Amino acid sequence: MDIASPNFENVGSFTRAWEWLKALPVKLWAMAVEFANKMKKLGQDDPRRIVHSLKVGVAITLVSLFYYVRQLFDRFGENGIWAVLTVVLVFEFSVGATLGKGLNRMLATLSAGALAVGVDQVATLFDGTGQPIVLGILVFIICATVTFMRFFPALKARYDYGLMIFILTFCLVSVSSYQDDEVLEMAYERLYTIIIGSFIAIIVCICVCPVWIGETLQNQIANNLEKLGNFLEGFGREYFRLSEEGHSTDDKSFLHGYKSVLTSKDKEETMANLARWELWHYRFGFRHPWNRYLKVGTLTRQCAYKLEDLNSYLKCFEIQATPTEFRREIQEPCIQICSESGKALQELASAIKKMRRSTTVDGHIAKSKIAAKNLESMLNNSLWDNANLREIIPTAAVGLVLIDIVPCTEKIVVAFKELASRARFERMDDRVSPNNDV
Amino acid sequence: MDIASPNFENVGSFTRAWEWLKALPVKLWAMAVEFANKMKKLGQDDPRRIVHSLKVGVAITLVSLFYYVRQLFDRFGENGIWAVLTVVLVFEFSVGATLGKGLNRMLATLSAGALAVGVDQVATLFDGTGQPIVLGILVFIICATVTFMRFFPALKARYDYGLMIFILTFCLVSVSSYQDDEVLEMAYERLYTIIIGSFIAIIVCICVCPVWIGETLQNQIANNLEKLGNFLEGFGREYFRLSEEGHSTDDKSFLHGYKSVLTSKDKEETMANLARWELWHYRFGFRHPWNRYLKVGTLTRQCAYKLEDLNSYLKCFEIQATPTEFRREIQEPCIQICSESGKALQELASAIKKMRRSTTVDGHIAKSKIAAKNLESMLNNSLWDNANLREIIPTAAVGLVLIDIVPCTEKIVVAFKELASRARFERMDDRVSPNNDV
Repeated sequence: MDIASPNFENVGSFTRAWEWLKALPVKLWAMAVEFANKMKKLGQDDPRRIVHSLKVGVAITLVSLFYYVRQLFDRFGENGIWAVLTVVLVFEFSVGATLGKGLNRMLATLSAGALAVGVDQVATLFDGTGQPIVLGILVFIICATVTFMRFFPALKARYDYGLMIFILTFCLVSVSSYQDDEVLEMAYERLYTIIIGSFIAIIVCICVCPVWIGETLQNQIANNLEKLGNFLEGFGREYFRLSEEGHSTDDKSFLHGYKSVLTSKDKEETMANLARWELWHYRFGFRHPWNRYLKVGTLTRQCAYKLEDLNSYLKCFEIQATPTEFRREIQEPCIQICSESGKALQELASAIKKMRRSTTVDGHIAKSKIAAKNLESMLNNSLWDNANLREIIPTAAVGLVLIDIVPCTEKIVVAFKELASRARFERMDDRVSPNNDV
Repeated sequence: MDIASPNFENVGSFTRAWEWLKALPVKLWAMAVEFANKMKKLGQDDPRRIVHSLKVGVAITLVSLFYYVRQLFDRFGENGIWAVLTVVLVFEFSVGATLGKGLNRMLATLSAGALAVGVDQVATLFDGTGQPIVLGILVFIICATVTFMRFFPALKARYDYGLMIFILTFCLVSVSSYQDDEVLEMAYERLYTIIIGSFIAIIVCICVCPVWIGETLQNQIANNLEKLGNFLEGFGREYFRLSEEGHSTDDKSFLHGYKSVLTSKDKEETMANLARWELWHYRFGFRHPWNRYLKVGTLTRQCAYKLEDLNSYLKCFEIQATPTEFRREIQEPCIQICSESGKALQELASAIKKMRRSTTVDGHIAKSKIAAKNLESMLNNSLWDNANLREIIPTAAVGLVLIDIVPCTEKIVVAFKELASRARFERMDDRVSPNNDV
């Protein structure tokens, strides 16, 4: 038995290994299918991703012509590879990011190359052993200083890549200058191959189905406003339907849409920083006021915190506990605030998307203000004798939050108007009377 | 007069230009001083930034020895520059980021180099004109596919840099293979210079005053909890002092601390992704459960939204309008919820920082639950006859939010306990009875 059992075990582990091996192709196939499905879904979610991948392929194939075509290779030599690398490094999803990286890379290469040539001149004043020491000290000082400069928030936001390329090019040129006497030529070759690479990346990025980050930011801000508007419009109905019927609508997606707004700050700021690189765009023109979009975004977020608060009151048992007569009395102004504020936000969203001023939004705000005043005076005047405070409070608190939402929406409207006047949004009446000299 | 006036103007513009030129050195000096002051402040805010800059300088100077020392240069040749570039590109502020980039770069170079050599073998099967066409098609397909893979969220979070370097190395090796026959040698040289550069960056980063991103994440999560705790503790005092005395304490910084928590999501996720690269750390060991920290962070943020809500009720005129007897009655349980929940959060913060389990936190939670029940029954039973609803609601709503905060805090405690057991936090009683076999 003692001798047989390891044998048995061996047989067992062999069969298990064999089973595993036999199952392997099926497993691998399942993994491959899953991977392919995920890829398909990614592409379907945003077809621009597929286009971007093809664009990168085209740009790289284009730039590698420097290697494949004899005449071009003879002209540029092995340094042509810098152009290929530049395309890979600079080509980003959006035009803004590509332009930002390309300009950063070109400017940084130019200035770092010039500085490195200067440092090389200083170093040649020293003899044999002195030269590497002087070079080393200068490289140390400049690299440490520029690395520290990367911590400046203002520089980090827009020039971080440039500062890194500055260090890189400076090291490359000044360090190799010690063993290679043709420093100037090297700096010059690096500069023009990088310029060629950057331009190929920028041109392909702009000419083939460009993705403008400014448009994306504008859509994002508008969509966020729309999500808030949808929530408010839906909330009014949902809250009082719950209170009446005890069950809610089936489709509750509008109640969760606003959640993504809560944490949108970093994304919006990144987009605005990149959008500033898109110096000119047929829709936005020069110097579009991107920081005004951020202002609208910040106020939208503050409004979203209030919705988070409202959402927490959407509990069936609490709502139904509220005395019916109280609920019925405040129902009308509450629903009106919700629907008017909601409409105002949706109107702003569509105005931002179409880059038009809005003529109707002030009406919605005025109506919601009147409703808020009504609600306030109802809460002020009504003496709810014998009312159980605990039963009234949740609904009354909802009313209070809704009253708070009105000035919140108004602030967003003010920020929108500033944006509209700075960004010269089209006036709605322009279309009615095109000769109007406004 | 007509002749004199341009002359006058000329004189005017000359003097103005001269004034401007005279003022220039002063202006430049002022700008330089301001810049230096900003730099000083940046360094004082976080001295690790200065250390980081010096570390980068040291690492680059170290790696440039490959160029300065004759024997090393003869061994590595001009490809030594790849090691310098690797140090510049890979060296990041935290150990996690440096390790992540270094490992990504090494693995990507290895796999892309191997693939490129394979592609080169395939291309050599074709003759003259066929070769660049086959090469071009393969480069296009592989670059486009890998670019598309960069959109996968899971890959993007941890391997984005690796995928970019994969494309870069693949292009570099396979494209230059067309004009250069020593492909294998080139791939090999690129690989080992990159390994040398990565190791120098990683070693300097870890050995000289390392900044562990895991520690930073832990501190951030703990600090956020502490900010919430400070707010709650302060809010209880502030709210009822305002109601009694009409003025508030001078130092209100604790009332704004929580605002940074509202938008901390992206930063925390980035840190957790980088912390996963710090495979081993003397405090955290292997496989520290970083996603549990994110869980605590998410719940902290949800609690912060409630505080944003509380903060909006901190308006002097509204509080003072509340009838005194009502305010006095609910004052005690409200303050108790604030102080007990606040203490619980502060206790969690210090427990996370010290990596200890907490024995007192359950007591605080139990007390805050009792206070919440008291408050609830007060609101339930009291019949506030003749009370003006509008005057009562704001304070009652504060009570309601405070009641809501108790389960919020409890959820954070549960998440903390899961974290503590997964991360094997030290038990407090371990110190009292070290022989206790727990």
